[in-house]
Amino acid sequence: MKHRMKVRVIYGDTDKAGVVYYANYLRYFEMGRTELLRELGLTYRELEDKDGVILAVVEANLRYHASAHYDDLLVIETTLEKFDKISLTFKTLIFRKGEDKPLVEGTCRLAGVNSAGKLAKLPKKLTQVINDSLAPI
Amino acid sequence: MKHRMKVRVIYGDTDKAGVVYYANYLRYFEMGRTELLRELGLTYRELEDKDGVILAVVEANLRYHASAHYDDLLVIETTLEKFDKISLTFKTLIFRKGEDKPLVEGTCRLAGVNSAGKLAKLPKKLTQVINDSLAPI
Amino acid sequence: MKHRMKVRVIYGDTDKAGVVYYANYLRYFEMGRTELLRELGLTYRELEDKDGVILAVVEANLRYHASAHYDDLLVIETTLEKFDKISLTFKTLIFRKGEDKPLVEGTCRLAGVNSAGKLAKLPKKLTQVINDSLAPI
Amino acid sequence: MKHRMKVRVIYGDTDKAGVVYYANYLRYFEMGRTELLRELGLTYRELEDKDGVILAVVEANLRYHASAHYDDLLVIETTLEKFDKISLTFKTLIFRKGEDKPLVEGTCRLAGVNSAGKLAKLPKKLTQVINDSLAPI
Repeated sequence: MKHRMKVRVIYGDTDKAGVVYYANYLRYFEMGRTELLRELGLTYRELEDKDGVILAVVEANLRYHASAHYDDLLVIETTLEKFDKISLTFKTLIFRKGEDKPLVEGTCRLAGVNSAGKLAKLPKKLTQVINDSLAPI
Repeated sequence: MKHRMKVRVIYGDTDKAGVVYYANYLRYFEMGRTELLRELGLTYRELEDKDGVILAVVEANLRYHASAHYDDLLVIETTLEKFDKISLTFKTLIFRKGEDKPLVEGTCRLAGVNSAGKLAKLPKKLTQVINDSLAPI
Repeated sequence: MKHRMKVRVIYGDTDKAGVVYYANYLRYFEMGRTELLRELGLTYRELEDKDGVILAVVEANLRYHASAHYDDLLVIETTLEKFDKISLTFKTLIFRKGEDKPLVEGTCRLAGVNSAGKLAKLPKKLTQVINDSLAPI
Repeated sequence: MKHRMKVRVIYGDTDKAGVVYYANYLRYFEMGRTELLRELGLTYRELEDKDGVILAVVEANLRYHASAHYDDLLVIETTLEKFDKISLTFKTLIFRKGEDKPLVEGTCRLAGVNSAGKLAKLPKKLTQVINDSLAPI
């Protein structure tokens, strides 16, 4: 249950230091966890549109070890670190392609929020899909 | 009916060339026209929440004459260039504070869109406010 | 000399209207022209690092016909519309995948700028590569 | 040594949930700490241009308690939580104006990095200014 995808650093991601602006890694984190869920057969869009549940980020923690530069091809590696009935915690590592030390690593905890803006249990569909992915074959 | 406001360039606005990323001027354009309307006594938020009309950008044109740098204090100067029953065209000039040649200039045409996503006449409240602002005293 | 690439709309690209924020299409435009040049065998990075020339956007024009939504898979179609010794004009169309009417279309004119910030002729390497790509086989 | 400034939420800061996109709070954090330093008589720009030291973010931690909405007027409250010879840790609280519970809170640790990209001691000018601000009158 480890998802990997690639992304190319554009001018619009960088700042005057010539490296990816520190906030923009959270965009990569979003890309990674969205695609991990899609690979499991689920989309955020569907959760929101059909199940009326938004997954809101309630906590994010980032460690910046080294900088990603303009035009670098990055690898976003996402794993589901833990989950319970109300939240999911994703761990994300950002590598420069071909390297084995992450440039940046971080975690994001997401909680279910219903249309009234209140915390809500995660939809069954989601926890089911996750449990299935963890089950021995 | 000329609105001026200031904004400071942050790291997050710049790119690796050390200047404001070309897309981010459209953020400044948005700030300017929003505050111009607020000065006339109207907010986008109210138009959307109470009148159910979104003002969607249908056209944007930008000329980049010179670059705004990190930590520059910029002046956003916005005027309503023209309007009719279905659209408004704002003209925006971006200056470095204290200078008289604009770094960037552009226009944005916005049209009314209703909650079904269809073009709609601009709300009366909006055209009224604009007409009032143009009226001789 | 038409380049096509795909990009997925993330939360970070959208705004409260649930659609891609109007400035962010310029990010897609950048992605498209960068990859078009890469396909021709050239990278911006190399132009900047080896030839000391930056390609600065001097003009951008956008027409927004319809909105791209969250999680849409978009196609960025880029062509080099014209070029001379000092500038390149790219035309970009943004489609929702599988559709044949563009959501957004626009042009960006880029000019060569040297390290002193002055307009400069485009590097020979660049004009050569473009001429080669246009030549009959 | 507590700095407060206001910022208005624009469309470009929000996402399809109608609230500020989670990455964009890090832009507010940057605004806050930059202005705190300016109030102490120092600018990042000067540190970089004159002293050749960049302050790079090496760690960021955010807790999202509630959402900031479009057009909200926010208060960014920044304090210097701790510092030593090589790093500064800023604490930032984001409030909706007039409220006393923060919507978001977080910390960012910044370290000095020299032009070769290596960790470096913070410039004396910076530590001096900070010490002065802490001294009893």
